[in-house]
Amino acid sequence: MDYIIGIDVGTTSTKALLYDLDGKIYAKANKGYTLYQNVPDMAEEDPEDIFNATLQAIQEVVAKGIKDNGKVLAISWSAQQHSLIALDKDFKPLTRTLTWADNRAEKYAAEYKENGRGLAMYKRTGLPIHPMGPFYKLLWLKNEKRDVFDKAAYWVGIKEYIIWKYTNVLKEEISMAAATGLLNMKTAEWDEEALKETEVTQDQLPELVETTYKIQGIKSEYAKVMGVGEDVYFVMGATDGALSTIGVGAIETGVLAINIGTSAAVRSFVDEPQVDPKARLYCYPIMNGKYLVGGPINNGGIVFSWAHDALFGAEKETAKLLKKDSFDMLTEIAEKVPAGSNGLIFHPYLGGERAPLWDANARGSFFGLNRSHTRAHMIRAVLEGIVYNLYSVTLALKEVTGEPKAILAAGGFVQSALGRQMLADVYEHEVVIPDSYESGSLAAMFLAKMSLGLEDKLEDIKKYIGSEKKYEPDDATYERYRRLIPIYIRLSRELATEYKSIADYQREFPDAEN
Amino acid sequence: MDYIIGIDVGTTSTKALLYDLDGKIYAKANKGYTLYQNVPDMAEEDPEDIFNATLQAIQEVVAKGIKDNGKVLAISWSAQQHSLIALDKDFKPLTRTLTWADNRAEKYAAEYKENGRGLAMYKRTGLPIHPMGPFYKLLWLKNEKRDVFDKAAYWVGIKEYIIWKYTNVLKEEISMAAATGLLNMKTAEWDEEALKETEVTQDQLPELVETTYKIQGIKSEYAKVMGVGEDVYFVMGATDGALSTIGVGAIETGVLAINIGTSAAVRSFVDEPQVDPKARLYCYPIMNGKYLVGGPINNGGIVFSWAHDALFGAEKETAKLLKKDSFDMLTEIAEKVPAGSNGLIFHPYLGGERAPLWDANARGSFFGLNRSHTRAHMIRAVLEGIVYNLYSVTLALKEVTGEPKAILAAGGFVQSALGRQMLADVYEHEVVIPDSYESGSLAAMFLAKMSLGLEDKLEDIKKYIGSEKKYEPDDATYERYRRLIPIYIRLSRELATEYKSIADYQREFPDAEN
Ligand SMILES: Nc1ncnc2c1ncn2[C@@H]1O[C@H](COP(=O)(O)OP(=O)(O)OP(=O)(O)O)[C@@H](O)[C@H]1O
Ligand SMILES: Nc1ncnc2c1ncn2[C@@H]1O[C@H](COP(=O)(O)OP(=O)(O)O)[C@@H](O)[C@H]1O
Repeated sequence: MDYIIGIDVGTTSTKALLYDLDGKIYAKANKGYTLYQNVPDMAEEDPEDIFNATLQAIQEVVAKGIKDNGKVLAISWSAQQHSLIALDKDFKPLTRTLTWADNRAEKYAAEYKENGRGLAMYKRTGLPIHPMGPFYKLLWLKNEKRDVFDKAAYWVGIKEYIIWKYTNVLKEEISMAAATGLLNMKTAEWDEEALKETEVTQDQLPELVETTYKIQGIKSEYAKVMGVGEDVYFVMGATDGALSTIGVGAIETGVLAINIGTSAAVRSFVDEPQVDPKARLYCYPIMNGKYLVGGPINNGGIVFSWAHDALFGAEKETAKLLKKDSFDMLTEIAEKVPAGSNGLIFHPYLGGERAPLWDANARGSFFGLNRSHTRAHMIRAVLEGIVYNLYSVTLALKEVTGEPKAILAAGGFVQSALGRQMLADVYEHEVVIPDSYESGSLAAMFLAKMSLGLEDKLEDIKKYIGSEKKYEPDDATYERYRRLIPIYIRLSRELATEYKSIADYQREFPDAEN
Repeated sequence: MDYIIGIDVGTTSTKALLYDLDGKIYAKANKGYTLYQNVPDMAEEDPEDIFNATLQAIQEVVAKGIKDNGKVLAISWSAQQHSLIALDKDFKPLTRTLTWADNRAEKYAAEYKENGRGLAMYKRTGLPIHPMGPFYKLLWLKNEKRDVFDKAAYWVGIKEYIIWKYTNVLKEEISMAAATGLLNMKTAEWDEEALKETEVTQDQLPELVETTYKIQGIKSEYAKVMGVGEDVYFVMGATDGALSTIGVGAIETGVLAINIGTSAAVRSFVDEPQVDPKARLYCYPIMNGKYLVGGPINNGGIVFSWAHDALFGAEKETAKLLKKDSFDMLTEIAEKVPAGSNGLIFHPYLGGERAPLWDANARGSFFGLNRSHTRAHMIRAVLEGIVYNLYSVTLALKEVTGEPKAILAAGGFVQSALGRQMLADVYEHEVVIPDSYESGSLAAMFLAKMSLGLEDKLEDIKKYIGSEKKYEPDDATYERYRRLIPIYIRLSRELATEYKSIADYQREFPDAEN
């Protein structure tokens, strides 16, 4: 039997899934690694750690899932965006990988926002003005780490580096290249101005290829360890954002893909490059005639997890005794409170925010407290706040993509029926939840099939997605959200005036981060 | 031996204390009554209930405290302000007593705020523009309860009514009269304009007397029940606000009295009528050459009690097992968090607010949440928020009274060393905590002594106050509060723009008050 491995190099771990050619899953593996954050705003990972995680994850799914003499035809790659590694002329890393969460280039993003050049660059490249972008990381390195900058022979992302380690081929596919902010979104070539500003030359960057580009001939020692043939194809794949959108079947313009995992995102494909005049959304070319527009959101399920830990310590213990999932139990508690949480409104910006604010200083808040409110209202307000925030990003997206034709949602947060219904009620729109949970890996697998000539239309991924659940908005409920959301949005503006002062305070008093 | 009883007719209960002439306490009694709130914004009490509570409380302290043939020389009265009862020509109540917490006159207060007449009346009477004031209650009754209004032969407060029940004498002393908003603060006579606007005539109001005015000759049946002689003096006394200020020894201009009980207040005596151009403070004549300026605050310890119940259910049980006071335990938890609560700021307006906002729609909020915050930070932020709010009222008071010469604090909140130190740190000023906890009754007793010619200078109350504790601001701590308070104050303005919309939502969805 033939297999394809879809592998997703995430921020905290790498997941590999072993599929047969019909999309059935035979094995899963998950390998974590360390995020280095020992300096403020730093968020680095060791490329060798990540390489090893991919090796072990593949080894594990092969060992667990393949019986008799099955054969892995291809390994197809999904990965985190915005990572940056400097390599010397022998392709040896001069830095760890700077992840999307690394904010040390903040000063340069702020400068570019201030002087208008950020907006101009955004219009060329589709990268919002934010330190996550390799464009800004390069400005920071050029100005503040000149030694590394001067020694760098190549600049690559983590996926390119890993594929190079396996194959000795250094290429970059378009979606990942776009997320660097160095790619011109109209030509899908490296952008001359971006290169000039960062003082990076084309020959320091990988050659650009399509997402379905395949490489044959991996190093024999790695093939042996993983238990695959040396003739296995490596398919370039795409960014996790692009793939998880494809993987829920959101292919056409105006079909929204919502993902609420640890972080969250709202995305849609469009046929033409589309920029948001207020630079709240990214826009990256993904493949021929397909551009992905969307808003990346820091404060997704991680905020639910915070509330879970910070407010419900005792209940967590109770859940354990009941042999219940504690997130499920909190969701049950939240269900006992009326929609709208008795007018308690939560802004979920615990960790600063990308879309819709693009403000690293943003902080969370509860507003509207009266004496009727308890922790039960707080937990419901937290869930509602996460969804209001997604909705406010969607309002920006709608300005570009029009009214949504359909809304597809995935991620840990929609494991709960309450979360799914809340999406339908806040959006006042049917919400469809595909059954396949690992949408990124599924899409990676599908790209491999296209690459191998076994599929030819992106739309055909829908065959693999399987059954879906549908949630319709409830009249009585959305009436409440309709009243509260404008307050939520107006308050966002009011509160924003004090984000810098409070974040400065929190940074300045060292014990204030405990 | 001779005794004096100080009795305080509060909002939820009446407390009587039996003193000897040296101010030593021999017995205490406390009798509660019902607050009727069955209609939105209504807050009424039954005058007969309250009368009975006073009778029983006096009976109890006499029975418990007096040995042999001791004699009660006088019973001296403190009471809640702003209450209003309509009496018919036979002095029978036509209404229950409308307490200060009754907000049904809101529409009239709003109208007077809008059209500027509220400010003009405030400048004459010292009553802030708020439905608590009998002036506004009369406007409401006149317009919306015309039958009662037309039948009323007399308008009185609860203290006057009770004293009348005991003595058949209907008089009102100046401090209580001032709190109606019908008294001209400069002349200390009923204000012509206020009477014209409310269509109340002088002969419908009690005759005005001094706070030390005494009445002899109570009805024999009541004397018998209470166990006192028919020749006992009833001393008019004053408002609870005036007496608790005198009772901590804050007599001179610029000596601040802070009280944080269920509600809270910041007050100071001044020698001249003083109005706040922004009408944030009241100003009432109390006695010859003594005017009380201050801000009444709804959200005092009641907010700590809310946090205690709403956020710390499990810990309350733990405290019980430990045989610890659960408020003490929460204070201990709050002490484990650095001052400034890691930049978490709480606005305590759970129940609307009088000073400094005078906005019944105000609501509570937490601002500045990051992932480091837990319930421990929340409880500390709640305590700090209560104190920041008091401080912001004090800023308004300072505009009138100048820099404080001394700060004296009392009330349940300052039972904790943390609360006391927090006051010193936020105010950046020494805070003195008198030992005598029942400052209102003590001052009532002292007024009785003046009335009986046993004391003649108000300042001499200090002899009775006993020992004090002093708290000095801590450098490292107040630096933090100095950073956070301006953010707190600026945010107050930002948040205020959405109080009406959220309060409207909470009123409109009936289940949203559970
Ligand atoms: N151990 C404690 N430490 C600190 N604060 C406490 C403690 N126990 C109670 N409190 C606070 O004190 C408040 C009650 O204070 P107090 O007994 O002075 O109120 P009160 O007389 O009802 O109030 P008011 O003066 O407004 O009529 C409670 O609401 C609570 O928040
Ligand atoms: N039972 C549950 N119900 C609702 N939400 C959940 C549940 N369990 C976990 N979550 C949320 O899902 C988030 C993780 O989602 P997931 O998609 O697994 O994340 P990742 O982005 O790391 O892959 C958690 O942060 C948590 O808030």
